[in-house]
Amino acid sequence: MFHTVFYQLKDPKNIGMVIRSHVAFAGGLLVFAGYDPPYSSKKREKAFSRSLFKKCEKLHFTCSDDLFNWTKENSLKTIAVEIAQRAEIISDFNFPDNSVIIFGNESNGLPDNVIERCDYVVRVPQYGGVGSLNVAMSASIVMYEISRKRKDIKSVIGKMYDYK
Amino acid sequence: MFHTVFYQLKDPKNIGMVIRSHVAFAGGLLVFAGYDPPYSSKKREKAFSRSLFKKCEKLHFTCSDDLFNWTKENSLKTIAVEIAQRAEIISDFNFPDNSVIIFGNESNGLPDNVIERCDYVVRVPQYGGVGSLNVAMSASIVMYEISRKRKDIKSVIGKMYDYK
Repeated sequence: MFHTVFYQLKDPKNIGMVIRSHVAFAGGLLVFAGYDPPYSSKKREKAFSRSLFKKCEKLHFTCSDDLFNWTKENSLKTIAVEIAQRAEIISDFNFPDNSVIIFGNESNGLPDNVIERCDYVVRVPQYGGVGSLNVAMSASIVMYEISRKRKDIKSVIGKMYDYK
Repeated sequence: MFHTVFYQLKDPKNIGMVIRSHVAFAGGLLVFAGYDPPYSSKKREKAFSRSLFKKCEKLHFTCSDDLFNWTKENSLKTIAVEIAQRAEIISDFNFPDNSVIIFGNESNGLPDNVIERCDYVVRVPQYGGVGSLNVAMSASIVMYEISRKRKDIKSVIGKMYDYK
């Protein structure tokens, strides 16, 4: 099981795409942290009216202290996804049970003081000479990689979505 | 090496995201097939003015016959990405050298007569009970999986994009 944290992620289109992947890979909670959750604004965006979003269980924490208190109380492992010095390549990383994967803002990424408090930092390997992956793409790849390594996923989830 | 085919893929935002992943995973040619390429329209979209797009080598084929003639002449292996009966799960699939990965339209997917002519059909496994992955997410995951399996990728590309 993994939970997905949007840490100050702003673009509703990105958030909407990450939610679609979160559902496709059988994620647990959607967590909005470090800000007032964007779905609480009066100007509701399409991403937050979709049935997928409504179906997901959600949490929000206005400050990072509350986020890390929650993960500690629930014995969850926090995993920052960021191109940082200590970041491990996802292909070589053993995602623990009850992973909480944390994605940062589109422009600024995750703040250093959040990365420092995480149990692990991971990154998607990029080979093209430029760091060009969009945050929603990175998130989807990380979720795929977590699922790929879960040998038990079929028995946990019941069955895979299949062709009609 | 892989090449990326947009088969009647229409949304410039999706195409733009796929191009970013294509570059991040060191893809070869960008191929627009089955229609007039959307970047040829007068109303140029942001996705097609980005420097990443300009930097990529491009091909276009108005009809699918031209696409398959090109792959045949160049001994390329065509791989449809689609939730279809004969589709193999990407995690278990050995991508051949010189793969051409083909993505279909956002609403309709790939037409049956294109799928039938492809050497292989693959799919991203989804576990959430609904087929909710966006095409750009699927494309990025497939490209990641191709790269993950290429043990030689570092020597081919030189070096990975790294933190600053």
